[in-house]
Amino acid sequence: MIAVLKNGVEKLQQENLINWLEGMDLKVHVSEGEYHTVLGLIGDTSKIDMDLLEGLEIVESVRRISEPYKKANRKFFDDDTVVDVSGVKIGKGHFAMIAGPCSIESEEQIILVAQSVKAAGANILRGGAFKPRTSPYDFQGLKADGIELLLKAKEVTGLPIVSEIMNANHLPLFEGVDMIQVGARNMQNFELLKELGKTNKPILLKRGLANTLKELLMSAEYIMAGGNENVILCERGIRTFETYTRNTLDISAVPSLKEMTHLPVIIDPSHACGHSRMVPSLAYAATACGADGLIIEVHNDPKNAMCDGAQSLTFDQYEEVTKKVAEIRKVIG
Amino acid sequence: MIAVLKNGVEKLQQENLINWLEGMDLKVHVSEGEYHTVLGLIGDTSKIDMDLLEGLEIVESVRRISEPYKKANRKFFDDDTVVDVSGVKIGKGHFAMIAGPCSIESEEQIILVAQSVKAAGANILRGGAFKPRTSPYDFQGLKADGIELLLKAKEVTGLPIVSEIMNANHLPLFEGVDMIQVGARNMQNFELLKELGKTNKPILLKRGLANTLKELLMSAEYIMAGGNENVILCERGIRTFETYTRNTLDISAVPSLKEMTHLPVIIDPSHACGHSRMVPSLAYAATACGADGLIIEVHNDPKNAMCDGAQSLTFDQYEEVTKKVAEIRKVIG
Amino acid sequence: MIAVLKNGVEKLQQENLINWLEGMDLKVHVSEGEYHTVLGLIGDTSKIDMDLLEGLEIVESVRRISEPYKKANRKFFDDDTVVDVSGVKIGKGHFAMIAGPCSIESEEQIILVAQSVKAAGANILRGGAFKPRTSPYDFQGLKADGIELLLKAKEVTGLPIVSEIMNANHLPLFEGVDMIQVGARNMQNFELLKELGKTNKPILLKRGLANTLKELLMSAEYIMAGGNENVILCERGIRTFETYTRNTLDISAVPSLKEMTHLPVIIDPSHACGHSRMVPSLAYAATACGADGLIIEVHNDPKNAMCDGAQSLTFDQYEEVTKKVAEIRKVIG
Amino acid sequence: MIAVLKNGVEKLQQENLINWLEGMDLKVHVSEGEYHTVLGLIGDTSKIDMDLLEGLEIVESVRRISEPYKKANRKFFDDDTVVDVSGVKIGKGHFAMIAGPCSIESEEQIILVAQSVKAAGANILRGGAFKPRTSPYDFQGLKADGIELLLKAKEVTGLPIVSEIMNANHLPLFEGVDMIQVGARNMQNFELLKELGKTNKPILLKRGLANTLKELLMSAEYIMAGGNENVILCERGIRTFETYTRNTLDISAVPSLKEMTHLPVIIDPSHACGHSRMVPSLAYAATACGADGLIIEVHNDPKNAMCDGAQSLTFDQYEEVTKKVAEIRKVIG
Repeated sequence: MIAVLKNGVEKLQQENLINWLEGMDLKVHVSEGEYHTVLGLIGDTSKIDMDLLEGLEIVESVRRISEPYKKANRKFFDDDTVVDVSGVKIGKGHFAMIAGPCSIESEEQIILVAQSVKAAGANILRGGAFKPRTSPYDFQGLKADGIELLLKAKEVTGLPIVSEIMNANHLPLFEGVDMIQVGARNMQNFELLKELGKTNKPILLKRGLANTLKELLMSAEYIMAGGNENVILCERGIRTFETYTRNTLDISAVPSLKEMTHLPVIIDPSHACGHSRMVPSLAYAATACGADGLIIEVHNDPKNAMCDGAQSLTFDQYEEVTKKVAEIRKVIG
Repeated sequence: MIAVLKNGVEKLQQENLINWLEGMDLKVHVSEGEYHTVLGLIGDTSKIDMDLLEGLEIVESVRRISEPYKKANRKFFDDDTVVDVSGVKIGKGHFAMIAGPCSIESEEQIILVAQSVKAAGANILRGGAFKPRTSPYDFQGLKADGIELLLKAKEVTGLPIVSEIMNANHLPLFEGVDMIQVGARNMQNFELLKELGKTNKPILLKRGLANTLKELLMSAEYIMAGGNENVILCERGIRTFETYTRNTLDISAVPSLKEMTHLPVIIDPSHACGHSRMVPSLAYAATACGADGLIIEVHNDPKNAMCDGAQSLTFDQYEEVTKKVAEIRKVIG
Repeated sequence: MIAVLKNGVEKLQQENLINWLEGMDLKVHVSEGEYHTVLGLIGDTSKIDMDLLEGLEIVESVRRISEPYKKANRKFFDDDTVVDVSGVKIGKGHFAMIAGPCSIESEEQIILVAQSVKAAGANILRGGAFKPRTSPYDFQGLKADGIELLLKAKEVTGLPIVSEIMNANHLPLFEGVDMIQVGARNMQNFELLKELGKTNKPILLKRGLANTLKELLMSAEYIMAGGNENVILCERGIRTFETYTRNTLDISAVPSLKEMTHLPVIIDPSHACGHSRMVPSLAYAATACGADGLIIEVHNDPKNAMCDGAQSLTFDQYEEVTKKVAEIRKVIG
Repeated sequence: MIAVLKNGVEKLQQENLINWLEGMDLKVHVSEGEYHTVLGLIGDTSKIDMDLLEGLEIVESVRRISEPYKKANRKFFDDDTVVDVSGVKIGKGHFAMIAGPCSIESEEQIILVAQSVKAAGANILRGGAFKPRTSPYDFQGLKADGIELLLKAKEVTGLPIVSEIMNANHLPLFEGVDMIQVGARNMQNFELLKELGKTNKPILLKRGLANTLKELLMSAEYIMAGGNENVILCERGIRTFETYTRNTLDISAVPSLKEMTHLPVIIDPSHACGHSRMVPSLAYAATACGADGLIIEVHNDPKNAMCDGAQSLTFDQYEEVTKKVAEIRKVIG
């Protein structure tokens, strides 16, 4: 960690600061420049509160050299993490093909979709029961009933299931759910993350719409600090000035996160663009870029879907995607 | 609501859509252009799910003419709302001067700050007990103990108090708290908003870092739809590419929200810029712009504050601010 | 085009507006809602000045249904454009592999790079002679001398060449240059675009750092409106809140632009990420997504390059990229 | 300047780098941490090319401690600059009230506006002759004829005039213009900036829509490095996700720039919001915040203006603004 002191700081103030830092078991190197003095802090700086340090009158700015995430940091755990979702592995060469409808609508629907995506090559089933909606007047999902129907589809097909949680009080409902999704709007719902850290379920953590990769990793760290290291990161499009697509897929998140962390990284092309006709192209791009999996919306009848039909593939389209994804994976190696 | 149909839609499909819309008690006007057909939907469109409509194969795009928020909408309730916080009114000419430390640290500290800001002109005391922090390793607040100390400061000074909630399960702890704050990161924590909609406490709703004003109003609508119309909106800086300030104060949010809604609008210059030396300028700007109040961080000893000291004013600085704010209010009228 | 009138507009004002619009050879359809009246304008609205219309007292908002770009619009010219760069075709299945150094440094350097990238599979040579730099104190390129050296490399290898122009007065220097590049910072230098519209050279138009795709197409339209329809669009990363990469590659720009326009679309992965180690992944993603070409920085000695060495590939790395790109193109078909 | 070296750099490589840096007259302090070695570079680092340094294989990241702008930097020139625009001073307590139409339309119009804004309290006249428009089909201004008319208005009223330049070749036309404006889209048109640096005219430099304050100062530095130190900075709204206003006024730019530079800072509330009804509020906010002036669009007949009528004030509205601005200036002191 680097702390730049303000111009004209008195010797005594500077020494007091250095003593205080050394009292926290840090070594302090001092570089005096013409206009600034720079302190280099060496040791375990992850426990230093940057805001506190920057709050000191004599400090101009503070910058971390070491990242504040530890358990998620590739520097400390170089080997790729493999997350096991009830038998389906993700990461280190294991590829997740997660598919299903935005919203669970009925028993027939979810079972039909589950069987079809399994036949097409999916290895995990997704389905929304609790739906975060911007408007209180929009359809909010079938809730507990939706989870029940998803469990039936799991029973029929044997596919592990993933669904989004919005409230830690709902955790008992998710007992049979194999992987729990945290949506983009809850990425910094720290109370929820802490509760998920106490479980041992795989967590699919989606990046917030305007969050940096470092913030995503800090949120993963919340879960991991609680003891649950089964975290899978998901890039699903960020907010930019472009409006032609619903969001903007940050494809560089794949190689970037691969450098920053050992956790698996998957891509959600459906939410990223919001248009089913673009989903295949983005799925191929994500695969070519080295992602560990894809979560794609597939629906039996997209044009009549209760939610996000615009971004759902038909069964046939999904089958074509799984085939080409497999071929691209061979090229990339 | 306007729905633009795709080029080359068949007559029958178009008629089916129109029948379906008319079945929802809407009148449909059809404008046929050379390249597009446009449907104008007239009636109560707030219940229409835009995503659903846009999901239809024959629809190119949908745009609301009427806003999807109703209870928060100035078009339907023209008169300015006045929120009463245990006797202190906010809105329609009533100005809130909310002040206090970022974090509650001790009984002595919070009582000293409360007495000092009251003397300087504050009419509501703020203090953080539950602190949302990006890192799990940073100080997270005194929690329940912090609320206890805040209640003592209220007892001593008679100032109503406001504090941030992060988890609806903590609501019982907030019984004696006069106004509950929802932080920027929880602006779209819809589960929390719904629970707050069931209370009758004034809610101070902060805008998310990358959210639009419309989204802020949709979140207010979540609270109001539940029956609690005591909502105060707070602009506290948004994320932009500028890094010299912590966030970027969107000062235009004041005149914009005044047009869009009847709810009171206050400004938080402390979080907006993150530097105490800029807080007075931004406070004057907010006042000159027509805000209904200011929430400002004030600390007895900013350079040793446990959190966000960099953005806290001293008592003397705050007193100067309250005086000039009063003068500017006279000019603005 | 849709114009929404304000609430409570008088009949006479509305009629005057309609007469005025009809005077511009537009048909006007009127939809009267409970809160708003909406005018649908039918005909050639590309000549209507939206700002002018929105400036009228009685108009609340205006929205184009038809896009304001005509010559670049796929709706009017459905067939993919093929741009011929001195014998090398780009678009409609013809793939551009453009490579070379950020800056031309010496005759030996540019000839060595040209020969090497040609051997590795490049079909066009790039090289910067005029360099836009944020700081006036940074290296600004070899300028006219750089163009001379680039022409020598063209003579030796037979590769067509592309270089960036920053000033229309320099056009005579670009006579032997096969394709002229407009950099991101000049995307809305309309005076420069107009001058390029008077030439018949292929123009490589880069998207601005915070511009939308529609704005990119409007800039292409400036060139095309002048008579030069040889425009190739280039996505090279946009500005977002993410700082791990230099910019954020908007990979969805490929399928989006393919829908919006008939012009070829290429990707610059080097500037998009700024790190050579990520360039291959992004190049594969761009190819998998359907781009018409790649412009990649390649340098004989990246670590000692005078400019942007951090993002340049070595010859060996580039050769590996060209091979995998060819394989992915086969899969995508 | 701080350079962080990569993990595991060899001793010899590190020494070579240090020797190279010392050869550029820099002192190098070395701090060795557990995971990183940090070099502190002391001396005149403004000439170091950051990209070049970051391009070196062994360097992980580089960060400036000293700012790369020198002539615009308050650290080196603490005293506020006063720019003299043909007798009207701006900065250090001198306040600019610049007003006039977006576009010059006719002799009668510009003279009427000039006389009216002068009577209302303006001290400089603005008027657009060359108009940068996103669409090639929109009105582009009266060009040279517009400048002629503006000169007539100057003759009649004695007000100094300011107008926007888009092409350095037009400089001869601007001989009688007292201050030359560089528009937001040309803020990084470095060729234009260099030419303006060779003149001795006051330059009104507008911030780009997605540029940082540091980038704005680097563009000012381009002009100043050429010898012309008469630069006035103008914040006119930046691009954010908010769409209710045309742009988002970054009001914190005023106190921020006051810290970073000695140059005068003015605000353009008209372009910032795009709605005349909000212009007064933003003008008051800017004044309360410490701006050195305001540039405001005023039109004799806003609803029939040829350009940006939506954001123009009437004469009466402008007079009200000048009065309240004067009162707020008294409060601020």
